[in-house]
Amino acid sequence: MHQIIEDLNWRYATKKFDSEKRISKEDLDVIMESLRLVPTSYGLQPLKFLLVEDKDLREELLQSSYLQRQVVDASHLLVICSFRELKEEDVDLYMETIASTRDQKLEVLETFKTNILNFARNKKDSALQEWMERQAYIALGQLLHTCATLKIDSTPMEGFRAEEYDEILGLKDRNLTSVLVCPIGYRHPDDPNIERKKVRKSASNLFEII
Amino acid sequence: MHQIIEDLNWRYATKKFDSEKRISKEDLDVIMESLRLVPTSYGLQPLKFLLVEDKDLREELLQSSYLQRQVVDASHLLVICSFRELKEEDVDLYMETIASTRDQKLEVLETFKTNILNFARNKKDSALQEWMERQAYIALGQLLHTCATLKIDSTPMEGFRAEEYDEILGLKDRNLTSVLVCPIGYRHPDDPNIERKKVRKSASNLFEII
Repeated sequence: MHQIIEDLNWRYATKKFDSEKRISKEDLDVIMESLRLVPTSYGLQPLKFLLVEDKDLREELLQSSYLQRQVVDASHLLVICSFRELKEEDVDLYMETIASTRDQKLEVLETFKTNILNFARNKKDSALQEWMERQAYIALGQLLHTCATLKIDSTPMEGFRAEEYDEILGLKDRNLTSVLVCPIGYRHPDDPNIERKKVRKSASNLFEII
Repeated sequence: MHQIIEDLNWRYATKKFDSEKRISKEDLDVIMESLRLVPTSYGLQPLKFLLVEDKDLREELLQSSYLQRQVVDASHLLVICSFRELKEEDVDLYMETIASTRDQKLEVLETFKTNILNFARNKKDSALQEWMERQAYIALGQLLHTCATLKIDSTPMEGFRAEEYDEILGLKDRNLTSVLVCPIGYRHPDDPNIERKKVRKSASNLFEII
């Protein structure tokens, strides 16, 4: 079996983490760099990643996470946030990053900038936010793979109250909203989920080669 | 540098594929198994993956892909689809898969089934479809990582006309809609994008450790 498949089979939605084990600085750097490299539509990266270490803060978030202890017990709590609105200054910042990275003049990027702004203006505010939130899910998918490769456990969660997270983390005033939560760390040997077989649809159900 | 980061830096949105090179059966099996293992909310997998090999069909899809040649030239065209509606029979099928995989009785899963159905009923149809479409993005994120590890090129695309794809691929009558498109294969040495530096936000912009 290919190592990728072994790794992905090894991972599971961890419910009970070992609260004593911490992810090393080296591994955390790989995780962050992997998240930084996640591709997004237009390359815009309308995202922010909060790595919550503070245990008191996490105890506060626990109430807004339907009391799922992994939020507190994992080594780190990753909160993937997206922008609420896309502002012209965000697009300008992106153009400047392209220009400096590729040693280009800003004028060359004028059409690209206009395309992005037109794309954004043609969507209702809610649809635009929705589109930015979708980008967070690409990051989640890449994150889970990276963690599995590093033999770090992860628990992707949609089950939390985003409005309360936004309040506790002070996100709203910063044009951010929490989209996904993912505790990362190391499974506790007593986690009953370790032994539960992974349930997935069959290949014949999921795939069609045409 | 960690191999993961080398791999993710190696990948880029390939515009010109080598139309002669095909992904091997072994690698394709790894890609499909990786997609099969993608975690989704509730474990529901409201997804279908079409691997389009047929070149005539892809020429037809080209018109609905803003004439982006990678759709035809790549070894395979992956179309990630999600369900349009979530039907009770889908949830029943899922319960049966859990029961058979874990050797459980269906009655034990009654509460879980009710939770999923309530979750679905509490959403408007459009919000429910939106939620299922988001799951496709997790698959995309995992796919891009898997391909990079296998040194297979990939081009994630939102830029296609989904309604036309659905029409050409006969998806609507099957309760499916195309969400994301991803040509996979091998870069052509003449692809001008090979040399273009990857543009990403800085770590200090993207991350906050609190």
